[in-house]
Amino acid sequence: MKYLFTNVLGSFVLDEQLKIIDSLLFKTVEEYNHKEKAEKKLASKHKDLRSLPEEKIAKALWLFQDQKYFAEFYQKNIQLTKTLIKQSVAEDQLIMQAIANINELDKSNNLLTKRLREWYGLYFPEFCKEISNPEKFVELVAEKSKKELMKEIDFDETESMGAELEKIHVEEIILLARGILNQQQIRKKHEAYLQKVMQKYCPNLLELAGATIGARLIELGKGLKHLAMLPASTIQLLGAEKALFRHIKTGSKSPKYGVIINHPLIQKAKKIDKGKAARMLADKLSLCARLDYFKGEFKAAEYKQELEEKLS
Amino acid sequence: MKYLFTNVLGSFVLDEQLKIIDSLLFKTVEEYNHKEKAEKKLASKHKDLRSLPEEKIAKALWLFQDQKYFAEFYQKNIQLTKTLIKQSVAEDQLIMQAIANINELDKSNNLLTKRLREWYGLYFPEFCKEISNPEKFVELVAEKSKKELMKEIDFDETESMGAELEKIHVEEIILLARGILNQQQIRKKHEAYLQKVMQKYCPNLLELAGATIGARLIELGKGLKHLAMLPASTIQLLGAEKALFRHIKTGSKSPKYGVIINHPLIQKAKKIDKGKAARMLADKLSLCARLDYFKGEFKAAEYKQELEEKLS
Repeated sequence: MKYLFTNVLGSFVLDEQLKIIDSLLFKTVEEYNHKEKAEKKLASKHKDLRSLPEEKIAKALWLFQDQKYFAEFYQKNIQLTKTLIKQSVAEDQLIMQAIANINELDKSNNLLTKRLREWYGLYFPEFCKEISNPEKFVELVAEKSKKELMKEIDFDETESMGAELEKIHVEEIILLARGILNQQQIRKKHEAYLQKVMQKYCPNLLELAGATIGARLIELGKGLKHLAMLPASTIQLLGAEKALFRHIKTGSKSPKYGVIINHPLIQKAKKIDKGKAARMLADKLSLCARLDYFKGEFKAAEYKQELEEKLS
Repeated sequence: MKYLFTNVLGSFVLDEQLKIIDSLLFKTVEEYNHKEKAEKKLASKHKDLRSLPEEKIAKALWLFQDQKYFAEFYQKNIQLTKTLIKQSVAEDQLIMQAIANINELDKSNNLLTKRLREWYGLYFPEFCKEISNPEKFVELVAEKSKKELMKEIDFDETESMGAELEKIHVEEIILLARGILNQQQIRKKHEAYLQKVMQKYCPNLLELAGATIGARLIELGKGLKHLAMLPASTIQLLGAEKALFRHIKTGSKSPKYGVIINHPLIQKAKKIDKGKAARMLADKLSLCARLDYFKGEFKAAEYKQELEEKLS
């Protein structure tokens, strides 16, 4: 009885005492990736060759503690691990980073826009009150002078309670506004990027969930693979963990939806139908994640239409 | 006995029954600001004229509820309030906004730099480990390619565990790095601005505390006026309120310093001397705030030298 044992150094034939009686060494780690070749060769040479049973592997590995092998064994294994790590970066990791960054940009923009409103409020409080949309507010402050803004909101100059600030002060406020504007633009580009990447990687999820919600689901589900394995009921609540655990602990109302709350289908639904809509949407999203992970066909457009009909 | 009563409409002479017997009306709110003129004129005309005692003011005001006065009284008072609000924006409000914004930019930059490290780590993890200084890290990622960075840290290309990402992915990461870089530059400009404004407004505080700590003290002290009124022991602990209240509530160790902990004099002091250094510094800072608020002379350089000698 002989055993076949392959590791990163080569393919080895061992006798019953686990001594090496034949071998084919690999020159590069690349060859290890096609180890079947070497194994076939040895198998045709030695009859009655079996693969090493699991309980003997630990013992067999002692052979490679030998000076003759150890340095190379260690170094090649590290090289192999590095290659595997290198190849392990998949699209979903990139998607997760991008969506996490969008969230952080949002947080940062909120914080800074509030500050801008307060700061600019010393100069032109009536304008801060007039324009409530934060993006528009930042854009206008960044690009127009107080005089132009007065025309914009049809405001009489003598009426303003704002201080007459010198240029040096106003410039600093404008600087902040331009910084926020710049971040808003980065956020928009990130969104377009997500759209592009997801179009290739998970077209079904993208079609049904949209870029932002789809990416958030991948992030919360810890990757597309894991998301595809989750039951629809879990997908329905991804992002509502806090409310869910509060429900379990204190018996408060159970949440109906997590990040999918922002989906148009749920937004549009009547209050009484929202729970049902969330359940149906999560069902289809779960199917989409599976279709995408297993490289299935494109069915999301169909699902979308179906949901729209049922929910209207 | 006659009473003199002045409000935004004009100066009025009232008899003992609080009826108007003479008056000089103001045409503009501006004239109200120089009300002494009108009051002098009336005083020279009427003998035995006294200012209206406080308890009678409420009653006298009823006169101006009269149709004849009310519309103008109301409108001019609003105008006056607006002017006062307009004039109330002092340098310290601008300083407080700028320093608050610097803090928020710091928070935002920290958050985004962490994200950048993680994201870029998929591409070139060895570089993220090598460069620990966050500002330098952002700058290098924003401005150099992976190849250039490999040369920078003397790294062998074949050794990298980072994934080989397509251009579309790398571009998105660089975009973020440039955004952060832009924010860092805004922060630097804000600091230079603070320096300039404080040079005029509170030169003593600026000299002894530096722009950032000085501005933080004004912010935490709710304005220079209020800061100037605080005892030195409070200034010593500004910014350590949380630890102070914990100390009061639970009897934990009392804090030795608030935001002044970052001051070079305290940073340089031996651990055992830090408390003493904080007390001495706070003493002088309190003097500086008072000198600045009451437009006193410039003594901070002297104080600084004195402290440096005593603490070395």
